[in-house]
Amino acid sequence: MTNQKRYNVAVVGATGAVGEQIIKLLEQRQFPIETLTLLSSARSAGTKIVFNGQEITVQEAKPESFKGIDIALFSAGGDVSKALAPEAIKRGTVCIDNTNAYRMDPNTPLVVPEVNIDKVAENQGLIANPNCSTIQMVVALKPLYDRYGISKVIVSTYQAVSGAGSRAIDELERQTKEALEGRDVNPDILPVGSLPVKHQIAFNAIPQIDKFQDNGFTLEEMKMIRETKKIMGDEDLQVTATCVRIPVVYGHSESVYVELKEDFQLDEVKDLLANAPGITLVDDPEAQQYPLATECAGKPDVFIGRLRRDLNEPRALNMWIVSDNLMKGAAWNAVQIAEHIASERP
Amino acid sequence: MTNQKRYNVAVVGATGAVGEQIIKLLEQRQFPIETLTLLSSARSAGTKIVFNGQEITVQEAKPESFKGIDIALFSAGGDVSKALAPEAIKRGTVCIDNTNAYRMDPNTPLVVPEVNIDKVAENQGLIANPNCSTIQMVVALKPLYDRYGISKVIVSTYQAVSGAGSRAIDELERQTKEALEGRDVNPDILPVGSLPVKHQIAFNAIPQIDKFQDNGFTLEEMKMIRETKKIMGDEDLQVTATCVRIPVVYGHSESVYVELKEDFQLDEVKDLLANAPGITLVDDPEAQQYPLATECAGKPDVFIGRLRRDLNEPRALNMWIVSDNLMKGAAWNAVQIAEHIASERP
Repeated sequence: MTNQKRYNVAVVGATGAVGEQIIKLLEQRQFPIETLTLLSSARSAGTKIVFNGQEITVQEAKPESFKGIDIALFSAGGDVSKALAPEAIKRGTVCIDNTNAYRMDPNTPLVVPEVNIDKVAENQGLIANPNCSTIQMVVALKPLYDRYGISKVIVSTYQAVSGAGSRAIDELERQTKEALEGRDVNPDILPVGSLPVKHQIAFNAIPQIDKFQDNGFTLEEMKMIRETKKIMGDEDLQVTATCVRIPVVYGHSESVYVELKEDFQLDEVKDLLANAPGITLVDDPEAQQYPLATECAGKPDVFIGRLRRDLNEPRALNMWIVSDNLMKGAAWNAVQIAEHIASERP
Repeated sequence: MTNQKRYNVAVVGATGAVGEQIIKLLEQRQFPIETLTLLSSARSAGTKIVFNGQEITVQEAKPESFKGIDIALFSAGGDVSKALAPEAIKRGTVCIDNTNAYRMDPNTPLVVPEVNIDKVAENQGLIANPNCSTIQMVVALKPLYDRYGISKVIVSTYQAVSGAGSRAIDELERQTKEALEGRDVNPDILPVGSLPVKHQIAFNAIPQIDKFQDNGFTLEEMKMIRETKKIMGDEDLQVTATCVRIPVVYGHSESVYVELKEDFQLDEVKDLLANAPGITLVDDPEAQQYPLATECAGKPDVFIGRLRRDLNEPRALNMWIVSDNLMKGAAWNAVQIAEHIASERP
């Protein structure tokens, strides 16, 4: 930040898993803040959060909360965004929405800064932050897309429980203790809080994230498929996804098969990725080095390893992509967009 | 078993994770046993194991241990099989080997009873049991292969620690407690006991099972690729695999993309699989029913769900395959082969 202008910033969903990370990042990045307004549901209002050494009391989010706010970062669920983002926009706030509410809206840019930061300029008061599992994949695909073109992507995910919120983190911890002690394990939240059937996540793998659609894919899988096409600006890009929740707290991992449109050299691919923005290459099989969720947690980058040419399709490669779902997958991507807006509106 | 002949059976590796399951299954299945000889390394010799109400003392496995043994089931590591299976064969024993030692040997049948039981007849004293992650996949693929043909398979696995032996189960439990208590987590066994670098498995996903090969794939991945072709008897079948260890105790899960050679109806595929031997279909998205490792543990079948037509390739489908890696993935497959041999040699 070289400009001296300071902004009135609001965080909606300030007490949630992503909101907490956003507040931490605004502090760490020394975002040029004039005032920070922390908003939440009525239930969490009154919570006190320390920011830059000062205690801020969380307030209930209401339409009038946005008066005078320059930038608002929403991560309080799709319903809250649908209800309050239009109110904020009316009051002149630029909204960065981390929910699914507006991502596929044709008038809303869906932005991953490393891929399509130019789309921010087209915003009409709202920029959507993509789904966590989509963000880390498109960061990895972009350098390959630009250099070789991509025809097909087949991804299987290994997703952390923090993607389902703080209560899912608590549930994994509680269930794990129950299982270790030989007690009955009582599922309460996962796979989908609002659906009737619950499954054990401790020492298990649940192949359901979000609700099932009529085509047999889950909403999470369809988000990866649709959002990837929109962010890459290529409706012909073939994407297939299987999304799975595993007993990891922070950090989504992805096993990705990619068919390129042109021949490639594996060394060139490694150089491309190693030098791309937002990517750290961790790829040394001999030294048993590859990205691991536990080691990527808390870091902003997308980590890539296990790069290898497919044995059947000479133009295809396989890779392993890991990133902290609350960081690049949510909070960091949103703060990157906020920083871009601030740098463009000095 | 309708014949009255009884067999002298030996279990090599009787104190290991798979050996224990084999002994349990021989008892449960009332295998026609005349004598049961339990063999192990010198270190574990002396252990007492109860079989059919009688205590049997485990003895150190030596060449002369196989004198008079009709059928021996090996699961004590590749080196033990290489050293002792030839000695057993010399003494007239039919060996069922659960290690990697002879699987790709052109003179050794590699058998999954639901797929290629006829190959047992070609044995020259030894039948190889495939890798756990291969077995459950080929059981699922076989009915589709026979009906439609298969051109390509892309699989990502979610593998349980029990596949790495009893010590890896202990390690997951120990690390999980350390992590829950906020202590340092000390990796000791995984990903590969014989390699220098160890990684945390608790609350993590490790994209390495077995050693890396020069082509960037791990040996586990190459096993899935090569063994699938051999078992299906089709060297043109394209298989790509990414094998990942996750914090699950029992039960491997697999996300599998399959390209068929002919058009298919999804309902017909479901009927085919539901009626195929060794398969239980658990596929009701509306009721949130799909196979889960925790629910498949201890059961002999291969469980299939999440069946859906691919959105890009009309001849491709995606599915989720789960089975207990110690049961169908090892002990049960071996005991099935032993039962077949017994039924053929009354």
